[in-house]
Amino acid sequence: MNIRNTKIIRNYLIHPAGSVLIETGRTKVICTVTIENNVPPFQKEKVPPEGWLTAEYSMLPGATDKRFKRERGKTNSRSTEIQRLIGRSLRTVVDLKKIPGITIFADCDVIQADGGTRTASVTGICVALHDAFKKMISKGTITENPLLEWVAATSVGIVDGKVIVDLDYEKDSQAEVDMNVVMTESGKFIEIQGTAELIPFDDEQLQEMLQEAKRGIRQLIDFQKKSVKNHLL
Amino acid sequence: MNIRNTKIIRNYLIHPAGSVLIETGRTKVICTVTIENNVPPFQKEKVPPEGWLTAEYSMLPGATDKRFKRERGKTNSRSTEIQRLIGRSLRTVVDLKKIPGITIFADCDVIQADGGTRTASVTGICVALHDAFKKMISKGTITENPLLEWVAATSVGIVDGKVIVDLDYEKDSQAEVDMNVVMTESGKFIEIQGTAELIPFDDEQLQEMLQEAKRGIRQLIDFQKKSVKNHLL
Amino acid sequence: MNIRNTKIIRNYLIHPAGSVLIETGRTKVICTVTIENNVPPFQKEKVPPEGWLTAEYSMLPGATDKRFKRERGKTNSRSTEIQRLIGRSLRTVVDLKKIPGITIFADCDVIQADGGTRTASVTGICVALHDAFKKMISKGTITENPLLEWVAATSVGIVDGKVIVDLDYEKDSQAEVDMNVVMTESGKFIEIQGTAELIPFDDEQLQEMLQEAKRGIRQLIDFQKKSVKNHLL
Amino acid sequence: MNIRNTKIIRNYLIHPAGSVLIETGRTKVICTVTIENNVPPFQKEKVPPEGWLTAEYSMLPGATDKRFKRERGKTNSRSTEIQRLIGRSLRTVVDLKKIPGITIFADCDVIQADGGTRTASVTGICVALHDAFKKMISKGTITENPLLEWVAATSVGIVDGKVIVDLDYEKDSQAEVDMNVVMTESGKFIEIQGTAELIPFDDEQLQEMLQEAKRGIRQLIDFQKKSVKNHLL
Amino acid sequence: MNIRNTKIIRNYLIHPAGSVLIETGRTKVICTVTIENNVPPFQKEKVPPEGWLTAEYSMLPGATDKRFKRERGKTNSRSTEIQRLIGRSLRTVVDLKKIPGITIFADCDVIQADGGTRTASVTGICVALHDAFKKMISKGTITENPLLEWVAATSVGIVDGKVIVDLDYEKDSQAEVDMNVVMTESGKFIEIQGTAELIPFDDEQLQEMLQEAKRGIRQLIDFQKKSVKNHLL
Amino acid sequence: MNIRNTKIIRNYLIHPAGSVLIETGRTKVICTVTIENNVPPFQKEKVPPEGWLTAEYSMLPGATDKRFKRERGKTNSRSTEIQRLIGRSLRTVVDLKKIPGITIFADCDVIQADGGTRTASVTGICVALHDAFKKMISKGTITENPLLEWVAATSVGIVDGKVIVDLDYEKDSQAEVDMNVVMTESGKFIEIQGTAELIPFDDEQLQEMLQEAKRGIRQLIDFQKKSVKNHLL
Repeated sequence: MNIRNTKIIRNYLIHPAGSVLIETGRTKVICTVTIENNVPPFQKEKVPPEGWLTAEYSMLPGATDKRFKRERGKTNSRSTEIQRLIGRSLRTVVDLKKIPGITIFADCDVIQADGGTRTASVTGICVALHDAFKKMISKGTITENPLLEWVAATSVGIVDGKVIVDLDYEKDSQAEVDMNVVMTESGKFIEIQGTAELIPFDDEQLQEMLQEAKRGIRQLIDFQKKSVKNHLL
Repeated sequence: MNIRNTKIIRNYLIHPAGSVLIETGRTKVICTVTIENNVPPFQKEKVPPEGWLTAEYSMLPGATDKRFKRERGKTNSRSTEIQRLIGRSLRTVVDLKKIPGITIFADCDVIQADGGTRTASVTGICVALHDAFKKMISKGTITENPLLEWVAATSVGIVDGKVIVDLDYEKDSQAEVDMNVVMTESGKFIEIQGTAELIPFDDEQLQEMLQEAKRGIRQLIDFQKKSVKNHLL
Repeated sequence: MNIRNTKIIRNYLIHPAGSVLIETGRTKVICTVTIENNVPPFQKEKVPPEGWLTAEYSMLPGATDKRFKRERGKTNSRSTEIQRLIGRSLRTVVDLKKIPGITIFADCDVIQADGGTRTASVTGICVALHDAFKKMISKGTITENPLLEWVAATSVGIVDGKVIVDLDYEKDSQAEVDMNVVMTESGKFIEIQGTAELIPFDDEQLQEMLQEAKRGIRQLIDFQKKSVKNHLL
Repeated sequence: MNIRNTKIIRNYLIHPAGSVLIETGRTKVICTVTIENNVPPFQKEKVPPEGWLTAEYSMLPGATDKRFKRERGKTNSRSTEIQRLIGRSLRTVVDLKKIPGITIFADCDVIQADGGTRTASVTGICVALHDAFKKMISKGTITENPLLEWVAATSVGIVDGKVIVDLDYEKDSQAEVDMNVVMTESGKFIEIQGTAELIPFDDEQLQEMLQEAKRGIRQLIDFQKKSVKNHLL
Repeated sequence: MNIRNTKIIRNYLIHPAGSVLIETGRTKVICTVTIENNVPPFQKEKVPPEGWLTAEYSMLPGATDKRFKRERGKTNSRSTEIQRLIGRSLRTVVDLKKIPGITIFADCDVIQADGGTRTASVTGICVALHDAFKKMISKGTITENPLLEWVAATSVGIVDGKVIVDLDYEKDSQAEVDMNVVMTESGKFIEIQGTAELIPFDDEQLQEMLQEAKRGIRQLIDFQKKSVKNHLL
Repeated sequence: MNIRNTKIIRNYLIHPAGSVLIETGRTKVICTVTIENNVPPFQKEKVPPEGWLTAEYSMLPGATDKRFKRERGKTNSRSTEIQRLIGRSLRTVVDLKKIPGITIFADCDVIQADGGTRTASVTGICVALHDAFKKMISKGTITENPLLEWVAATSVGIVDGKVIVDLDYEKDSQAEVDMNVVMTESGKFIEIQGTAELIPFDDEQLQEMLQEAKRGIRQLIDFQKKSVKNHLL
């Protein structure tokens, strides 16, 4: 089985350094990258100096079947977990030494949710990040591209005992096991999160899920490369 | 002078009852209307029974020139004021007795800000509301259209002593006086908020601003009607 | 029609730089002005240096007919809106360049509410501010009076189709339209907030309300001047 | 030594069931008693049914030498402790069985602080409570007076090794030991809170402080009785 | 390599239904299970009726090398993630239909941290849960043991390119990859969380880590069984 | 009557500078002392320089008969009051001038509660503090022992009209009067908190309670001294 139909619109907004609208099936996420000339305290004393990258993730109220209540009281723990995943994934493929004194904000805002919003966020924000770095280089803010390689993510799960890749909301709700995989262009894993919902999974199922996830991510990385036409600048 | 170039895309999202992307100049707002079969306590004992309508307003981080910090700690007072304005404006043109037991959520999420986000929200959400009521009627949830007449809004201000309508961000920053006007199709005011920034305004200036605002709002209401093709269903 | 019976007691408390008890009809507000030798970050880099003025507004639990719940969880949006109105009104008539390095706190605490608490706050705090500046000059903290002119405020509304000025609570609850006007001694507007409660208002009604508001504010400014006996020091 | 000059103004406000302005020296507190026809969950299942009484304590920003920051983020622990003291003191002299289904709110708002605000609150609110009960009886809400006896409070401390009663702010700051005593008309203690600030106190000092506190409280209770002219209705 | 020296003290506290002190190396966690005769709203309408199980995780201030700041403002996202992991792990091995109308609270409080606090929590709380169910059966609260099988957890990581099981704090800080595995007695996975810290991991490393984790968990389950002497009651 | 059976285990944890498990009857508290090389702003400008000492108090969920809800939303006022009592008690017997630039954190975490948790905390933390100072001296961080004398605390109350010392939970619930007393080795009081629960107490009862409390505290201080074997190093 293949990943769902995927579409990436670059330069979606005028203000951010990089901005992308990614669509995977009916899931749509606005991914924006903005720059701040400052780093958090814990990065300030690094020698040689390093920049920082942090991510935030949210959903619009109209994104879900039932209205999604805004996280105004506090960030719910699901969002916190997802934004940590996005941040960690990007930091693994970015050379922070090449952006000294700079913080990158990677914002992923889901405008329509139909499963796989966190993995679409990782895939889309990497393109926005590519574009932001390109713009920073052309402005002379930085001299070398800090993006080491592409990273993308997809989900894989077991529905009725069968392994399926890139689950939409309906399949995700039926899945006995749900696994998110983040992988780089060179085939290295950054994150494997496999969670059983009531029915645990065995070793054989685990291996099959990993194979499917890798195949899907390779398709996504091909797609990222095509969308920016020339490979990493 | 005329209002900026305006565009309304209906049925922008799949989940909400009504959803619109409105663009005024470079300002873009996603307006969604969702329905809940419940009313807040203070509406429960009304005889005859009435529904309720409430609004929320927010900005995406990539919407502004500098990254807009998410309102996660708490809603800032600017957003609170704007969402009360939107809610009050809509409630004036909706007959709540025609939606007993129902709460309408009117969500306005700014994805790109270039001045006039609150007035674009009022203008756009009224179209989403029209569409939501249409869908509710076709589903048999309600029998009569609760929308009494169209409502739209624009801003007007004094820049270098000169009255200007529908200010973009740059003009708004230069304005000595900033006035938002919400008006109905029949020419009645719902809200007039005129605020001097350091330099107060006199009576003559007030009158000129009011004339310009009325002219702009009439153009917007024509535009709303065209966008739904047939007047109020 | 005239404004309600108004009374101003100066030097009401021992600690603050300026303190006034204002009574308008049965509405009573304690207005205090205190000084801090510090300015918020955004004012620190102004050249030439400027001070700042900020306002807070609150109600005692015994001020209202039903016990008013303290805003301890968080400030409700009504209070936030009112304190922004008070702050903006005062800043328009204060030359911040004459108080470099100084923040003025303008606190308005309603001890008895019977309509018009926000407008009584503006009118009363301006007298407390006058007194605080007087004391600062006599102490040598500042050399020139930063108060440019008097400012006062009143409400005006439409009750049963008739325009009424300085509404008490009962009339305010019946009003179809409620408008607050803040105006300076020289007849310039700082703020016009007109809000329709369900029934919108037309152009003619707007004009009549503006005339009545201006007449009421002129009476209040006469009253402020008499209360300090000599005009602006 | 005697307690400071004390003054009680009854019926200070129009809305609450009982309201008093108490002044002890330069300390001024508005004490209001309001009624709600409801009890908290933990009182609902009492047999025979009982009412409840709860207290809140706060300071206005202009009450203190330096501006007192409003407790809007959250109640500071000093206020929490004081309002629990006030509530407990009153509940000891009120027969809750005589106010079934009713909650009494006892609000103490300090408008000017010069030491002893918590003890003035206890003394003043007891008079407001007396008046509220009187009004409830005359309205037929309750049939018997629930106030069992008078309660009052004062502070006592050791300044330069000498015992002093009813400390103002200056003396309180110099005190090595600070003790608050709440006592009923019949000479029973409700609360003794003695705290050493860096220098602990011995047994003899403790005894002397207790004698002085009792003498002061007896004076205050005489004063309460005179202020309502006839003893407990 | 083997797991660290492990110790389980049952019936550690007098109040809870089940309570265990688990020590893995120098890591010490108090695990308590308490019972409430109520279920959260979302479980109330299940047919047939089901109970619920929820987990909380926290650290004492003296548990870590630097004082651990209490989570009083709000739960940090690390704790939130861990307590969701613990809750999900236990719910997979508990038949909620056998505890209708009952909520189980599984609390894990770390008193000394030296790596692997979340995995020690899972392993320890399962024994406390076993004891709580035993007590509930002997009291007649439930009739059948709801515990389906044992569950335990351990960590595995890559340090200097070498796979190591049950990492203490020092090794964990050096690890390039950190993986937590939760597995049942029957060899099924409930959770696999593998996270690369800057250096991603390849497929071969993943397989080796999984083998080591499984071996460690089998040792822990043997240990759980011995500690309760007879298998599942 | 005597105090309950008391036990002190020193060096209970590996990370903190001082750590003690104290048991009084069935009440068990972990007391830890940690050090930070920093002082709060209000201590920074003291001449000669002074350090600071602050206390925190909390309960584990399994400590009480019913599960104790974690104070994650905010610290409840009972905990706030107790931690202020502990901090004040310790600061009275510590010479802050001997720890310039240093903040001592005194954390008391109740793992099992059966009455008297706050007094056990004071008694136990004083031993942990002794040990922390000993370690600081041996490390050369400070040169002189800042602990001036021992401090301990116990409770005393009136149950069925009879005075009882060191109340367990059951007796405490029955007590008409509850008094906590903190006293130093030299017989000086730091704190006396006597509170009547509905039935006030007279002078004679007060004196008898004080005698019993003093006798109990003397036993506890003997016990502290024995536990560290040599008096204050």
